[in-house]
Amino acid sequence: MEGDPPLRLRVFDLNCWAIRYLSKRRQERMRLIGDLLHREDFDLVLLQEVWSEQDYSDLKVKLGGCYPFSHYFRSGVIGSGLCVFSRFPILDTLLYQYSLNGYPYMLQHGDWFCGKSVGLVLAWESASLLTHSSQLHAEYCREKDAYLPHRLVQAWELAQFIRHTSKAADVVLLGGDLNMHPEDVGIRLLRGWTGLQDAFVEATHFEGCEDGCTLVPNNCFTDKSEMLPFPLGIRIDYILYKAMSSYTVKCEELKTTTGAAPGMDFPFSDHEAVIATLHIQREGQAARTTFGTAELALADVVTEARTEVCVGLRVAQRQRYSSGRMAVLALLLLLLQAAATLGVLVGLDAGQPFPKLSFCLLAFLAIAILLLSTGLHLFHTVEVKMLRSTEEQMQMVLRALQERP
Amino acid sequence: MEGDPPLRLRVFDLNCWAIRYLSKRRQERMRLIGDLLHREDFDLVLLQEVWSEQDYSDLKVKLGGCYPFSHYFRSGVIGSGLCVFSRFPILDTLLYQYSLNGYPYMLQHGDWFCGKSVGLVLAWESASLLTHSSQLHAEYCREKDAYLPHRLVQAWELAQFIRHTSKAADVVLLGGDLNMHPEDVGIRLLRGWTGLQDAFVEATHFEGCEDGCTLVPNNCFTDKSEMLPFPLGIRIDYILYKAMSSYTVKCEELKTTTGAAPGMDFPFSDHEAVIATLHIQREGQAARTTFGTAELALADVVTEARTEVCVGLRVAQRQRYSSGRMAVLALLLLLLQAAATLGVLVGLDAGQPFPKLSFCLLAFLAIAILLLSTGLHLFHTVEVKMLRSTEEQMQMVLRALQERP
Repeated sequence: MEGDPPLRLRVFDLNCWAIRYLSKRRQERMRLIGDLLHREDFDLVLLQEVWSEQDYSDLKVKLGGCYPFSHYFRSGVIGSGLCVFSRFPILDTLLYQYSLNGYPYMLQHGDWFCGKSVGLVLAWESASLLTHSSQLHAEYCREKDAYLPHRLVQAWELAQFIRHTSKAADVVLLGGDLNMHPEDVGIRLLRGWTGLQDAFVEATHFEGCEDGCTLVPNNCFTDKSEMLPFPLGIRIDYILYKAMSSYTVKCEELKTTTGAAPGMDFPFSDHEAVIATLHIQREGQAARTTFGTAELALADVVTEARTEVCVGLRVAQRQRYSSGRMAVLALLLLLLQAAATLGVLVGLDAGQPFPKLSFCLLAFLAIAILLLSTGLHLFHTVEVKMLRSTEEQMQMVLRALQERP
Repeated sequence: MEGDPPLRLRVFDLNCWAIRYLSKRRQERMRLIGDLLHREDFDLVLLQEVWSEQDYSDLKVKLGGCYPFSHYFRSGVIGSGLCVFSRFPILDTLLYQYSLNGYPYMLQHGDWFCGKSVGLVLAWESASLLTHSSQLHAEYCREKDAYLPHRLVQAWELAQFIRHTSKAADVVLLGGDLNMHPEDVGIRLLRGWTGLQDAFVEATHFEGCEDGCTLVPNNCFTDKSEMLPFPLGIRIDYILYKAMSSYTVKCEELKTTTGAAPGMDFPFSDHEAVIATLHIQREGQAARTTFGTAELALADVVTEARTEVCVGLRVAQRQRYSSGRMAVLALLLLLLQAAATLGVLVGLDAGQPFPKLSFCLLAFLAIAILLLSTGLHLFHTVEVKMLRSTEEQMQMVLRALQERP
């Protein structure tokens, strides 16, 4: 009740950049991250990009004493990369895989092969702490961001998932690499639609990289050319929170890691970690949500996001059409070849019009194109479906916002 | 409050079997279903297997007067087939796609191509009605059910999704074709873990097919040979419900459709519809859930389900291994061919060991096998991941159940 001692919660969030065979000094860095977590004794640890289950198992063995509870979220071919360590008992977990996550043929980006998801962990320490951890699709080119509609669908699904699962929790937390700048439409949509507060904005005390940036040019693992337009760096890793029912949450302190790991000449990861100290207090009565101007601003954000999703929808429709047309052309070529072969067999033609080998190679090429473009056509069909579905849901929300007195 | 007039809710659930070009008399039947819904004026209508969006749009136009609110759930290549019509405002929706849903190479069954999901609709009529509609993977052979582990993963994910989303609702409903008999481990798991009650079991009054069966041999669209072991038919379509917070729900009446549609010589679908009349009343105080013997029974059910998931896991691991080995063999063959070609090119060999055409065909065959088996290997990798994840979650729940005093 009101007299309960307040809970001081220290939350740690880091994108570990631990891709087997690809990430530089992965094993050393994972060992250093383990040392840090062991030394600092946080309450909740949210890690992303722990792609190797072996890395998770090693951390679990190392941290078993101070974080007796943990969970690794499996999904997709490579995995979700998400794991959670907790000092408090983990009561339940749930994984929601985003319906869109880039393109399978963008092998150099590879997001599609990871089952990008949001993982939910329900932990208990005198209050029910509903913790979500996630990573959204990366932004590879800010000027011409082909993945923006997918990232917006993910931000929307993340917001919807949080809203639907958090209704009975006392405190809701979201930590992760959201791959969006603070002023981006996706982050405004997520915050507006869930009511989550940004620990960096709310923190009474801040210590760390300037502007709370988590991807900084000083970090030896970041790509310097990509950071040219942002001399200070960018803030894309967040800890967000919300008090539900009769609780209040305040962010006492926010920190980011800076520079090299202690005693080393390289940092923990290509991202900086975010560490928030939250002060959770039970109040006498339930806090009431106030509507009004916030709703108007929300309607604007949803409209903006919906416009971007519509742009993505038109692109996806065009791609679906092109791949479908290509499949039909390949099929026609195959049929033509079949007719020619049949002609030779029944003796209509005087002789073989092409050398056998070229004819055979052409047939294989046509089959390959047919299979590939059919696959692409099916992929873009799903993409169109999911973009349209998100667009419709946003429209429904807009109607509801406008109808509210 | 306690004095509020009770709400009488009529819920209709039907698997419409409306597959374009494949389902018999689809258009006539969809018209008849529309007529029935228009005439009977239910409160909530949950339809499955409405695979064509055009069929949904036609129903929406026809039923706009009596069911002003509706939602179509899009997912996967073909769709989820789920749609909901409601007399009450639909406030929000969410779709959760199951992580496993059969095998892409089982083309004759085709479940994999549908994005089998659970759709959530939050409707409001003096109480918040959280309605879930779903269809699980079909059972094609009861004696040797290769899909049982996948269906159990789906039942588990369905139960988890309902538990996590329903905490703030007043009344929770689930309607759908669950493709499980009432005594099957999956349905016991779902009911035990969510606390949902079976409208057929609880109904004060029942009218319809014997034992509440929804797939009956008398139906002219069902496969008679499949129904031989079940002369009365089977019950696989359900309406389940649960009262939350301070509400009570009673099932006054349950009906199923029987025989031909009015004035026709064929029925509405190959399934019978289930129609429940529920009586919802707000009580003075919140009902308390009692634990004890029910938890012990639940632990047994979870153990049984976990055993089946483990069996599926071992099968999936074997399949992953076989497909991986096949990919390696195909790669070796390709390398061998490449070496032979190189040998000819640099003049090590006296001549071409094979005729050019056969050599070329063999290379294409090896490439095709390599691609196919790599695809299969990746697919079974995901399958292993998801089965293991479900198995671990079940283990966590078992531990929690055993630790409870």
